[in-house]
Amino acid sequence: LPATYDDDTPLRIAVDAMGGDHAPAEIVRGVLAFLTEDQSGAHVLLVGDPQRIEAEITAAAGGLHPFDPACRVRLKIVAASQVIDMDEHPTDAMRDKRDASLVVATALTARGDADACISAGNTGACMVAAAQLLGKVGDIRRPAIATLMPTEAGAYAIVVDAGANVDCKPSQLVQFALLGALYMEKSLGVPNPRVGLLSNGAESAKGNELVREVHPLLAARRPHLNFIGNVEGNHVFEGDVDVVVCDGFVGNVLLKGAEGTGKLAMTILARDARAAENEETREVLLAALLRLRQRLDYAEVGGAPLLGLNGLSFIAHGRSDAKAIANGIRQAVKAARSGYVAAIKEALQREGQAG
Amino acid sequence: LPATYDDDTPLRIAVDAMGGDHAPAEIVRGVLAFLTEDQSGAHVLLVGDPQRIEAEITAAAGGLHPFDPACRVRLKIVAASQVIDMDEHPTDAMRDKRDASLVVATALTARGDADACISAGNTGACMVAAAQLLGKVGDIRRPAIATLMPTEAGAYAIVVDAGANVDCKPSQLVQFALLGALYMEKSLGVPNPRVGLLSNGAESAKGNELVREVHPLLAARRPHLNFIGNVEGNHVFEGDVDVVVCDGFVGNVLLKGAEGTGKLAMTILARDARAAENEETREVLLAALLRLRQRLDYAEVGGAPLLGLNGLSFIAHGRSDAKAIANGIRQAVKAARSGYVAAIKEALQREGQAG
Repeated sequence: LPATYDDDTPLRIAVDAMGGDHAPAEIVRGVLAFLTEDQSGAHVLLVGDPQRIEAEITAAAGGLHPFDPACRVRLKIVAASQVIDMDEHPTDAMRDKRDASLVVATALTARGDADACISAGNTGACMVAAAQLLGKVGDIRRPAIATLMPTEAGAYAIVVDAGANVDCKPSQLVQFALLGALYMEKSLGVPNPRVGLLSNGAESAKGNELVREVHPLLAARRPHLNFIGNVEGNHVFEGDVDVVVCDGFVGNVLLKGAEGTGKLAMTILARDARAAENEETREVLLAALLRLRQRLDYAEVGGAPLLGLNGLSFIAHGRSDAKAIANGIRQAVKAARSGYVAAIKEALQREGQAG
Repeated sequence: LPATYDDDTPLRIAVDAMGGDHAPAEIVRGVLAFLTEDQSGAHVLLVGDPQRIEAEITAAAGGLHPFDPACRVRLKIVAASQVIDMDEHPTDAMRDKRDASLVVATALTARGDADACISAGNTGACMVAAAQLLGKVGDIRRPAIATLMPTEAGAYAIVVDAGANVDCKPSQLVQFALLGALYMEKSLGVPNPRVGLLSNGAESAKGNELVREVHPLLAARRPHLNFIGNVEGNHVFEGDVDVVVCDGFVGNVLLKGAEGTGKLAMTILARDARAAENEETREVLLAALLRLRQRLDYAEVGGAPLLGLNGLSFIAHGRSDAKAIANGIRQAVKAARSGYVAAIKEALQREGQAG
């Protein structure tokens, strides 16, 4: 992969057309929405069953949101004859289905025929494919999932690891901090991102055994790393931290708990709207619900990058709709243009020499 | 402590008048609100500086929500000359301030002069006082905090442990399950409560090392324990589980993360209301915000019981207002009347024989 891009070089994003609860229809619609709106000239490689993909393109052309036919030149269909189901065992699927759409999309990226790939399919299989085909950087054992969470400041904080690495050693959490800080800086354009260690209290003595071991390791990396100390679960949403470091078990609980509370808030508001006395009140509440959904729905950011790989792979929510897919491709374009992969290789090499 | 109560015996709840961000004003107002509304005839022992407490009672009598003077006979002021600040070191404070309001409130409960105590003060000090003065049950090492979380079903799930025990052994999580299930059944009246183990996936093979060890231990306690398997963070809010078992580090992250997301949802709705085009729209949104707050605000349940003790102690949120305190006292009355303490002693004894 080239480390940097000339601004005139169109980027190429490989999209798994067959992965996710609403594939291929919503995936294809998302790709067309992206291509119609995109100003960067990026290309999409849509990977899957060519007949079904073509049928969805035809259906979309006659739909409510027709796409600009001029953008069709930036879309290429790549055939893949198999599909990995959502509940298949990741390593078994990876062994038995080498021509599955998500494997082919990842392989295109590994070969340099695409600059990044994205799939709303089987998360575990995406991770295995990415680790095997793209390769890991430095002494990363398993890629980390970096999930964006909305904040009161109207921005996002990134949680690393959000579920891939369940039992972690202190050195892994240090890697998550470096990987997350670089992603935030390079791909999301946040200068000198604030890195916080997720704990049960802000004081440095707080935390479980792992967190208490990691705290001094992160503190020792100042000022190179902008480590702001321990943060608590509520701080993640308050806009005071950019990168939240935790093991994948804890990150998953944080993420799912936030998802559950957000859903609860939306359910309460939706019930309110249904019980409204008159049409005007109902409309006001439904509009408020829509705005709340736009901020809280994690699918709005479209995808979570797998960090620690020698290439870019994004996993999208299984429930992704067209909008989520379009947003995810946009995120992939930004990351590919940012030179993130070259930067992490350099940073982890430096880390290896320092350690 | 008597194991059961005759319905005619008025219960006595010791309330720390000096603990919390809004003490003593909001604590006293909460006690007066409780006494005015309560139908059970319960008594309150208000512990702290008698002069300040009397001044607050006088102020409340002339306020917007005057209390029924007839309920004054159910209120007794107990003098305590010291106050433990919110940021004092718990064990140091416990050693140096034996006449602190929260210590005296706990001591009244330990002596049997009160049936339960509640404080919105220093959480760590409340725990140390409760463990030292009330005493632990069975082989409990540290009491667990049981926090109620709102669900889509309009009810509550209880999370045990929500922050007291940070690094746990498998046997501790089994105890949390027993303690939580009994509290849910006895005190909250939920028959055969569904117990779930908090994990990063519903499948039994999912989880970190601790969770994978605990899963078969809980499964082995069926059908005595209604163990429904692993649950994820979002399930907590969906009404499919009554008792959520986790270590205190993970429980704290879940709790604070949910608090942060709830606050984010309320901030978004409040901004919407401020930006409203007209007065009618603003009023509709502010009314919706109030209803959302009533469901999401954990202070609404008023307090979290410390489980695993030979007596009842409740910790209230430091930011508790009068309503939270009144709700907390109500919860304490229910728990005291339920015979919970006698039931856990029996259950843990049985557990000790079984193990």
